[in-house]
Amino acid sequence: MRVLVANRGEIALRIVRACHEAGHEAVAAYSDADKDARWVALADAAEHLGGSPAGKSYLNADAVLNAAKASGADAIHPGYGFLSENAAFARRVREEGLTFIGPPPEVIEKMGDKAVARETAREADVPVVPGSGPVADVAAAKAAAEQIGYPLLIKAAAGGGGRGIRPVDDADALADVFATAQAEAASAFGDGTLYLERAVQQARHIEVQVLADDHGHVVHVFERDCSVQRRRQKLVEEAPAPGLDPATREDITAAAVRLARHVGYRGAGTVEFLLDDAGFYFMEMNTRIQVEHPVTEVVTGVDLVAEQLRIAEGKPLSVTQKDIALDGAAVEMRINCEDPDNAFVPTPGSLDRFDLPGGPGVRVDTGFTAGDVISPFYDSMLAKIICWGADREQALARARQALAELRIEGVRSTATLHHRLLTDSDLRDGAVHTRWLETWLG
Amino acid sequence: MRVLVANRGEIALRIVRACHEAGHEAVAAYSDADKDARWVALADAAEHLGGSPAGKSYLNADAVLNAAKASGADAIHPGYGFLSENAAFARRVREEGLTFIGPPPEVIEKMGDKAVARETAREADVPVVPGSGPVADVAAAKAAAEQIGYPLLIKAAAGGGGRGIRPVDDADALADVFATAQAEAASAFGDGTLYLERAVQQARHIEVQVLADDHGHVVHVFERDCSVQRRRQKLVEEAPAPGLDPATREDITAAAVRLARHVGYRGAGTVEFLLDDAGFYFMEMNTRIQVEHPVTEVVTGVDLVAEQLRIAEGKPLSVTQKDIALDGAAVEMRINCEDPDNAFVPTPGSLDRFDLPGGPGVRVDTGFTAGDVISPFYDSMLAKIICWGADREQALARARQALAELRIEGVRSTATLHHRLLTDSDLRDGAVHTRWLETWLG
Repeated sequence: MRVLVANRGEIALRIVRACHEAGHEAVAAYSDADKDARWVALADAAEHLGGSPAGKSYLNADAVLNAAKASGADAIHPGYGFLSENAAFARRVREEGLTFIGPPPEVIEKMGDKAVARETAREADVPVVPGSGPVADVAAAKAAAEQIGYPLLIKAAAGGGGRGIRPVDDADALADVFATAQAEAASAFGDGTLYLERAVQQARHIEVQVLADDHGHVVHVFERDCSVQRRRQKLVEEAPAPGLDPATREDITAAAVRLARHVGYRGAGTVEFLLDDAGFYFMEMNTRIQVEHPVTEVVTGVDLVAEQLRIAEGKPLSVTQKDIALDGAAVEMRINCEDPDNAFVPTPGSLDRFDLPGGPGVRVDTGFTAGDVISPFYDSMLAKIICWGADREQALARARQALAELRIEGVRSTATLHHRLLTDSDLRDGAVHTRWLETWLG
Repeated sequence: MRVLVANRGEIALRIVRACHEAGHEAVAAYSDADKDARWVALADAAEHLGGSPAGKSYLNADAVLNAAKASGADAIHPGYGFLSENAAFARRVREEGLTFIGPPPEVIEKMGDKAVARETAREADVPVVPGSGPVADVAAAKAAAEQIGYPLLIKAAAGGGGRGIRPVDDADALADVFATAQAEAASAFGDGTLYLERAVQQARHIEVQVLADDHGHVVHVFERDCSVQRRRQKLVEEAPAPGLDPATREDITAAAVRLARHVGYRGAGTVEFLLDDAGFYFMEMNTRIQVEHPVTEVVTGVDLVAEQLRIAEGKPLSVTQKDIALDGAAVEMRINCEDPDNAFVPTPGSLDRFDLPGGPGVRVDTGFTAGDVISPFYDSMLAKIICWGADREQALARARQALAELRIEGVRSTATLHHRLLTDSDLRDGAVHTRWLETWLG
């Protein structure tokens, strides 16, 4: 197989690695800013996409399709972000006779509409946050809100990924917020459809990794806990979820498999849930590889990107559900070129020094190397440091040591924040929820 | 515990990491050449030992003991090489009221004398290569040789680690070689005692990792295959041994545990065997951590250096034999600053660029970073790259990819040799023995 890698940074290199290990060829598709990038040099061939702004390159479907054809690729791996969850793009790839490494466009579409995804989860007997169907006006919203209870959230059906959400604390506020949300949704997404959901307080973000092939196999690869977030950006991820009781683990993973099976899923995907004392609720499904997939890999030994490639070739998964077992614990720290002491403003610049941690249990995924220039055009992630331990305590101890070894000069990074986070007693105790970091940051 | 790290390079950093992860303090003991080294900076404190030549620093027992006392250390970790198998040093450490992180001096002594070690193995019902006891003169050697058969080896009792060995092809050559060997042994080791051993042809080097604590627990952590050697210097190591049948694995690991138990072993140690079609034979025991220990760690999840620290504290092992299972396969490549195209001559110099591989299954152990100067005073190892895979094929594929990612500028290294080795069909088939590499190199 010859795979066009339609992405950049660490995930591009991750895909190149997986291609080489499986005997496939990898073609790097790159923008102007990335022409000298490490992942481009390590690919078997390279195709220029266009200008540095993503709209001219990584987000430009025509440019990506042309690059695929020009390079003789059979398949396109979209990575995460960019075109990875764009159903129209996936459909065009298919129409061009190429393989889109991901689920069918119909599944991407269904999961991309939050209201439809929610309804689909209900059909699959997967618990959703108590809420309503589409509410046409304030009167309908008021009636629905009495059933759901306050506080609640007004959500745009066409939103997702944390966008198009407005909290409502009580009945008095409903009418005003409804009007604002409707206007916003119409303007931002071209669709003013709204629905209501109970506001789940102090919940953990638990997500289940699934894999599905063309031979009827659907498996889960256990769960991740991604509760440490700032503005819905994950900063620390773990597998397995600390302290999750075995019965809940069994239920939540079974629910994810049920949903994947129900929608005819294919490829690697993630079903995201909120978990509180009352139970777990479906939030959304990400129909692509996730940034945080390595924590799952290091606690299970399953290579998720290799499985994506197998699935795309029409092969069965290399593992069955009973082969997949949890071994130890893992934590991932996202090292972003952002200044945690200055509102997390991005800090692009020259990476003058970049000494990586190493030793037992330490994995580093990065697309960069010392001397590179970190571009202002893209997201600010510099590296992911993933630490495995025989237990969570060892994984966290290794994470602290890895941070001590990491040396970055030329740009500021979130490493300093991770230092402080990893010694926090709440985090060490696993006593965190999705609002915890924002409170902690003050 | 406060641990003086009486070593340098990657193993010094390895020990610092293990100390930190277990909540101990690490004191780096360093020579002039190493004052700016990475492992020194990452330790909690540092003590200067002396001049750059090892005799003035890492091999100077007085300097190391003084550094331990000056720094308030409770224990000394000797790493490998230098003073790690020096029974007199271990005894002095004990006499000073400090903990030597290794076995008791009596055990180091017993295993250090090859003839005694061989006799001890026989006592423990561990097979040894057919051979003789000490032979006083040519007549005794001839009589013994008739029993053993040719070709054979004449070995110095005081030798070891590949030194003091002379091959004899037939009876005609015996008298001359005996005289030479006797004179050499007397001059090199101060002891002319010789014994004979059958020359095992086309054998594999298989070694078993053992751990023993003060509470009567002795376990094995499976085996490594280190057959890819040049002049008895290992270049590629694997765990588990490719294609080893389960019955032999059970027998050879049981033999290693039996020997460790018989000698009252304590700490981490390695029992080295030769394996051929007829069976396995004890070769020697290394009473310290080995360079190649990481391959064992990545296929079992057992942190061997952490166990050394536990044992030194008088704690029981963190694992029992039934907890220790093999998971997947691992290969380690030693990246040395040597020129494989020029008789492996050491190539010290300035490490101008040092980009490390990463991603799934890749572990790098190195004490160095870009900008360092690789000193001519010490051994030439720059880094160990350890690749894990769910099976051996994946581990080797990852090793090839890791080599492609490794970028070293300023010094020549064995990386180029590893590139060629890893695509060799004999190595891929596991069809190698201890003389294979020398033949392959021509």
